[in-house]
Amino acid sequence: MVRTPTPEDKFSFGLWTVGWPARDQFGDATRPDLDPVESVHKLAELGASYVTFHDDDVVPFGSNDADRERILERFQAALTETGIEVEMVTTNTFTHPIFKDGAFTSNDRRVRRYGLRKVLRNVDLAGRLGAKTFVMWGGREGAEYDSAKDLKAAHDRYAEGIDAVAGYIKEQGYDLKIALEPKPNEPRGDILLPTIGHALALIDRLDNADIVGLNPEVGHEQMAGLNYTTGIAEALWAEKLFHIDLNGQKSIKYDQDLVFGHGDLFSAFATVDLLENGFPSGGPTYDGPRHFDYKPSRTEHLQGVWDSAAANMATYILLAERAKAFREDPEVKAAMEEAGVFDLAIPTMSEGETFADLLADRSAYEDLDVDAVAERNYGFVRLNQLALEHALGAR
Amino acid sequence: MVRTPTPEDKFSFGLWTVGWPARDQFGDATRPDLDPVESVHKLAELGASYVTFHDDDVVPFGSNDADRERILERFQAALTETGIEVEMVTTNTFTHPIFKDGAFTSNDRRVRRYGLRKVLRNVDLAGRLGAKTFVMWGGREGAEYDSAKDLKAAHDRYAEGIDAVAGYIKEQGYDLKIALEPKPNEPRGDILLPTIGHALALIDRLDNADIVGLNPEVGHEQMAGLNYTTGIAEALWAEKLFHIDLNGQKSIKYDQDLVFGHGDLFSAFATVDLLENGFPSGGPTYDGPRHFDYKPSRTEHLQGVWDSAAANMATYILLAERAKAFREDPEVKAAMEEAGVFDLAIPTMSEGETFADLLADRSAYEDLDVDAVAERNYGFVRLNQLALEHALGAR
Amino acid sequence: MVRTPTPEDKFSFGLWTVGWPARDQFGDATRPDLDPVESVHKLAELGASYVTFHDDDVVPFGSNDADRERILERFQAALTETGIEVEMVTTNTFTHPIFKDGAFTSNDRRVRRYGLRKVLRNVDLAGRLGAKTFVMWGGREGAEYDSAKDLKAAHDRYAEGIDAVAGYIKEQGYDLKIALEPKPNEPRGDILLPTIGHALALIDRLDNADIVGLNPEVGHEQMAGLNYTTGIAEALWAEKLFHIDLNGQKSIKYDQDLVFGHGDLFSAFATVDLLENGFPSGGPTYDGPRHFDYKPSRTEHLQGVWDSAAANMATYILLAERAKAFREDPEVKAAMEEAGVFDLAIPTMSEGETFADLLADRSAYEDLDVDAVAERNYGFVRLNQLALEHALGAR
Amino acid sequence: MVRTPTPEDKFSFGLWTVGWPARDQFGDATRPDLDPVESVHKLAELGASYVTFHDDDVVPFGSNDADRERILERFQAALTETGIEVEMVTTNTFTHPIFKDGAFTSNDRRVRRYGLRKVLRNVDLAGRLGAKTFVMWGGREGAEYDSAKDLKAAHDRYAEGIDAVAGYIKEQGYDLKIALEPKPNEPRGDILLPTIGHALALIDRLDNADIVGLNPEVGHEQMAGLNYTTGIAEALWAEKLFHIDLNGQKSIKYDQDLVFGHGDLFSAFATVDLLENGFPSGGPTYDGPRHFDYKPSRTEHLQGVWDSAAANMATYILLAERAKAFREDPEVKAAMEEAGVFDLAIPTMSEGETFADLLADRSAYEDLDVDAVAERNYGFVRLNQLALEHALGAR
Repeated sequence: MVRTPTPEDKFSFGLWTVGWPARDQFGDATRPDLDPVESVHKLAELGASYVTFHDDDVVPFGSNDADRERILERFQAALTETGIEVEMVTTNTFTHPIFKDGAFTSNDRRVRRYGLRKVLRNVDLAGRLGAKTFVMWGGREGAEYDSAKDLKAAHDRYAEGIDAVAGYIKEQGYDLKIALEPKPNEPRGDILLPTIGHALALIDRLDNADIVGLNPEVGHEQMAGLNYTTGIAEALWAEKLFHIDLNGQKSIKYDQDLVFGHGDLFSAFATVDLLENGFPSGGPTYDGPRHFDYKPSRTEHLQGVWDSAAANMATYILLAERAKAFREDPEVKAAMEEAGVFDLAIPTMSEGETFADLLADRSAYEDLDVDAVAERNYGFVRLNQLALEHALGAR
Repeated sequence: MVRTPTPEDKFSFGLWTVGWPARDQFGDATRPDLDPVESVHKLAELGASYVTFHDDDVVPFGSNDADRERILERFQAALTETGIEVEMVTTNTFTHPIFKDGAFTSNDRRVRRYGLRKVLRNVDLAGRLGAKTFVMWGGREGAEYDSAKDLKAAHDRYAEGIDAVAGYIKEQGYDLKIALEPKPNEPRGDILLPTIGHALALIDRLDNADIVGLNPEVGHEQMAGLNYTTGIAEALWAEKLFHIDLNGQKSIKYDQDLVFGHGDLFSAFATVDLLENGFPSGGPTYDGPRHFDYKPSRTEHLQGVWDSAAANMATYILLAERAKAFREDPEVKAAMEEAGVFDLAIPTMSEGETFADLLADRSAYEDLDVDAVAERNYGFVRLNQLALEHALGAR
Repeated sequence: MVRTPTPEDKFSFGLWTVGWPARDQFGDATRPDLDPVESVHKLAELGASYVTFHDDDVVPFGSNDADRERILERFQAALTETGIEVEMVTTNTFTHPIFKDGAFTSNDRRVRRYGLRKVLRNVDLAGRLGAKTFVMWGGREGAEYDSAKDLKAAHDRYAEGIDAVAGYIKEQGYDLKIALEPKPNEPRGDILLPTIGHALALIDRLDNADIVGLNPEVGHEQMAGLNYTTGIAEALWAEKLFHIDLNGQKSIKYDQDLVFGHGDLFSAFATVDLLENGFPSGGPTYDGPRHFDYKPSRTEHLQGVWDSAAANMATYILLAERAKAFREDPEVKAAMEEAGVFDLAIPTMSEGETFADLLADRSAYEDLDVDAVAERNYGFVRLNQLALEHALGAR
Repeated sequence: MVRTPTPEDKFSFGLWTVGWPARDQFGDATRPDLDPVESVHKLAELGASYVTFHDDDVVPFGSNDADRERILERFQAALTETGIEVEMVTTNTFTHPIFKDGAFTSNDRRVRRYGLRKVLRNVDLAGRLGAKTFVMWGGREGAEYDSAKDLKAAHDRYAEGIDAVAGYIKEQGYDLKIALEPKPNEPRGDILLPTIGHALALIDRLDNADIVGLNPEVGHEQMAGLNYTTGIAEALWAEKLFHIDLNGQKSIKYDQDLVFGHGDLFSAFATVDLLENGFPSGGPTYDGPRHFDYKPSRTEHLQGVWDSAAANMATYILLAERAKAFREDPEVKAAMEEAGVFDLAIPTMSEGETFADLLADRSAYEDLDVDAVAERNYGFVRLNQLALEHALGAR
């Protein structure tokens, strides 16, 4: 049996995850709407430490100020009562039809300004609730048709919008960082910032890049056939891994949002190994919440909602234990050594070595026995089998 | 009938494209090796203006210096005779078994140093031949297994290697820019720098980023399900589109390297439209060679090699004519206006507008009739149909 | 400009296509519900000859018998007035939550029986309206999890259900054939009968296989990375192509349901070429309606709905004209000859040839100059370029 | 630690797997050719019970009869010495350039006849060696271009070829069954018989269908985004699962041929569970060899070849143990019951029930409380989590 979660686990859930009423592209809702206050209590019981939400998850779109205030006070009371904190807030700029062509990159300036206002209003809420991260998923920023967008202008507007939000955070003095969430497609045919890489490249061109980073989601990267662990490793290397969205996806298809581990299980092991144990030769680490962004399957009723929430945490805990044993196993360390995993941390050129020095080093080129070097057995398959057997608890 | 190519078309071919003997993963060569000198002559006859090559395409791996010199002189004579120029040179760091775990990110430092030496040697050749672009495709930089690499160290080494090459170019004073070529997988399970975005993000972290940009390939982006035109648009926006590789790919599968247009034809139209006509509201443009990186199908013998080379150029010319007519059609311009394509170039916040101003603008939020705005008919489908009918020459 | 459609074009539309209010997985409806009667009139004006529908598209789920009758009479009046015919009827066994685990393969026998009753009721409606085809898309027949289903039992129940519907059709004496519609995934993680092939194999195991065939959809096959034209060719070869769903899809991702041709345009050309011109050496042909199953993009309001409906037909007409010219071009015929396209219709063994004869034919093996035969230039790339230039109207 | 293999495990390896010299599309061989005799000895030591091969794996293409005989005698001696049996033989109709457009469906009749002769010759060898299964993978039967093939003729020729081989087997009286191996693409752009379903449908149209079944490969189905376990379940249901090819693949990309379990590990668990434990409510089972068709990664030298061979067996054994415990766990049985897994084996219509009876059963439709039934909690996520924890050895 898997141990129960503790605050040290830093587990976090989006309220929209357990709260999803299971309406999909082809079918009506199979579950009733959940009261966010009830969800907070239930998640606390299960062992979560944090919740996150879109503005509209807690306060219905179009609520007047008085209703909004009343709803928020009741919500905050639940937080106080349970000890649950709001670590992240995000904005819904995709459900209402006004956002059908996007928010920050809509071809209609009225929509762009409306979207920006909606986001700034939510920044204030995030500040008020003490959230540390402000996620932005531009799910409708994109197109189905190449002729529909001036793609240069679209990137300009996207950068302008994010920079504006970041500038506002700074102006207001909030202790808040922005985390962009990439996705390749769905609901748009092609979404701008389709992968971790594209989002990093946009961030690098912002005036306020210092407080903008990433919130990569397992399934979103896998929808482009990319390796999630490699993706968050690049984000860590760039010191931009501000938040994570853990879930499950099976191959390249529609966005499944399965329970973490219920997609590519062995890849999930590698992800947990990196999050818990860091790079083999050290470097930046991720210390933030372990945040689950999944959807309880539509076949499940309320019991299944809470069972699935618990399953995310159980799988994470289990894989974390296995990853710890994997790294501590002397046989693994030896296999990593043999595979040259630690060698890669050594710079290719020696300290102070000039190009002239390198070109003069005949052992590096002219005198190297390339065929002998080529015969090295890296032992990657054996190392991977050791990882697999540790993941399966068979060592 | 399609008109014949002219020097203004700036068509360029890799020598490895027509020279591919059609050995694949499951079969032996179906064609003889071609003499690069013959290929230069033949491509000149067909209307190409440039050739490009990997070091080993022209000078066999392991040739001694005397042989190398003799081969290069003969090759240069063919260039002079035909007027063909070498616009780009690239290095083979993937064929020899020594590179089986990569070159700049191999887990064996001897290989990293050897790879760097091989690349620097080829930089000298590029300088000698007057090439303007030095492409780097790190096809073996990656892994099949998550445990095989220290991914932080891998990014460090990759950056070190590219920075070293760029530093050497500067030290030698060559008029040469580096263009990185992303690819998501094949021949490695996951390749580092899988997409345009990831490569841009790495470039941003280089000391010598000023002379490093991109060489995106149609099929490589499409192997990740990404939109090639959107990708090169982001590269243009970032002023990093240094070179292009045009070819064809059908959906997400192994790297097909079909003739340009023989994959996703309508996407090819959008690509040519952007390359020839730029962004609708202006901005950076691409003026470099139209470079084809394709493989004549294995079913073809020599006749098919040259037929397929000609097909790349014919398709490009045809789509360029169609794209010009598309942009000039008043009905198209009106449809773009109606779709808000030009609106997107207008900043979301007015010049000099402060956050206080924006928050005080009730017309932007409190008083906006969101339902009315939401009813806008963007007309993207009609605009796309106009594009389709122009592409098909039916208007 | 493209000519307007005529009855000879046999164009048909699902009422759910133009009637889709554009509610998607991540957003609310952007368009009002359409009155099916209005849609019938509008489609008639645009040149369509037929409509098709799910029971619930015309008669809301749960309507009482009196309301149902009233609605149907009004609907039939619109058909009479416009001359539009109902060529196909299909059943919605996916929207209501009762079908969340499928209909014929639900793990709950009550649901299976309810689903069968709903389908049989709709068979009666199809019979009454004179439809010739009864499509069955089992969109919820599948699972997200391998442990959720007894897969042998699932195939048994699926076969039982289809056989029951076919048996009922025969018992009632309707002039109606069933057409199964495969899809690989979405809304279920894995759908049973994922491709044309799987559906054919199931049909072959039915008692009533004689009246059961296929309704393949462009996008559904392409979501599995498969070639739609090859798929319907296999269905034609098996004499099981009873109906078609034309639309557009871009690569492997969520189900896009774009306008026909707005996905893989060149593949659409091949599809139309096969539908209009048949196999090069003859064989079974498809003479049924050209049925569009697409969704007007969510960015479009009502104008865009009708523009997009018209676009489907315009693209089909255009490609049909181009395909006709392609087949009639003597240069194309010569290239097909050279490529051996007609040779393939010749049996490999001669009429009456025994194995002993074949083994005794030394010219076939022992004396064959395999290297010489291997050098044949099939000319597939040139033939494909001829097809491309015909598709683009450039010949 | 994982127990060592025994003959009861029925492990089998293709000689081309360990024997692959690691030449790929982009690189030269990294390992020497292996002597098949040595491979037989080595595989025996590791615990395998069978080997399989292509004709050319053991006897080089073009060997004269004397050489062939000598090679075969030496090979048979190794089999006798080790006790290893040849359970399956297959034919190489893809490596030599003569097969560049396929064998049975080549557009050149000379190639079709040559291919048939090569296959028949190999049938004789299979018979002589006592193999029980004759695998046919038509890797080159396909096309890159829609115009290249008469697709009706291609299916005719494919069927003719397979029927001829089956007819010859019967004529010769061999105790041999044919197993077709589907694959969606690579090395051809689109391969005929892309999936299990398509192959089943072709088999159903053969004269000699009784001795023709399937040899599905894990990675081949996953390259089309399909669920392998569901695929072999359909093949079992159709009583056509004659053989299996186990390996690993990560998502939709080029054919990776990783070690079994090194791709989608949790899917491998489901596969082993079905192979070892059968369907939950009984039905056809697979009793044949557990055959691995993988490639030792190109980064490995000879040590890695044998380590990877052993890894395939270790993973299978481990997953088999876990699957047994999963099925025996009372909590799992209860969860399966709750999920309705056993309910699905109950026919939807009762024995002897007529349509009139069904239509008269108001409890099935008119009086059914659909909303109440719709609220069922199937508990699929919890059941899947039980499976996951059993797979991980955590219960």
